[in-house]
Amino acid sequence: MDKNVNISILMDFYGQLLTLKQLDAMDLYYNNDLSLSEIALELGISRQGVRDSIKRGEKQLYELEEKLGLVKRFNDISKNIDIMNSVIDSLQIADGDKEKLDKIKEISKGLTKDL
Amino acid sequence: MDKNVNISILMDFYGQLLTLKQLDAMDLYYNNDLSLSEIALELGISRQGVRDSIKRGEKQLYELEEKLGLVKRFNDISKNIDIMNSVIDSLQIADGDKEKLDKIKEISKGLTKDL
Repeated sequence: MDKNVNISILMDFYGQLLTLKQLDAMDLYYNNDLSLSEIALELGISRQGVRDSIKRGEKQLYELEEKLGLVKRFNDISKNIDIMNSVIDSLQIADGDKEKLDKIKEISKGLTKDL
Repeated sequence: MDKNVNISILMDFYGQLLTLKQLDAMDLYYNNDLSLSEIALELGISRQGVRDSIKRGEKQLYELEEKLGLVKRFNDISKNIDIMNSVIDSLQIADGDKEKLDKIKEISKGLTKDL
């Protein structure tokens, strides 16, 4: 099986919707880089069971993204926020508005974190 | 059954994860304000079947929000974007930066739409 980096990202967004067994197996495989055999040993299930769990989990994650599109949405918005931030950073601002600009920057830079 | 306005919002976020039957019944009930009997007639299923579909759908929507929290996240971010927009609107800007400010406003006001 390919270790697709996108899967880790999908797990961040939709992991809560997987079963605990799937989540455990996928976390060990994708985030901790264990082999199928090592995971089987760790979780006390067969190597084939681990493989099936991960495969089913991957399928579900792709379907969830197809239906909800959260990762795509996150990427689109993040890009816009980054553009906005760089324009904000380049503004020539009246001295009296220094505080306001700081407030804008604070919120704007916090947005990506909250997405 | 109470017609909870929150359900319509939850449907916007998670509707794609419900079955088509649930989605149809809930849409007619919550967004088109039909009665259970009218929906039963419309969908060609029993009144009790409609009721069960809606109840199960509601439960799933609440569970999805508990797990993913998209509505809460949306509300939090929207609030921050609104605050940011009102500060941006109040900025005293150097004449040369007029165009930049317009760009910031355009992106900023588009963010909520893209969430």
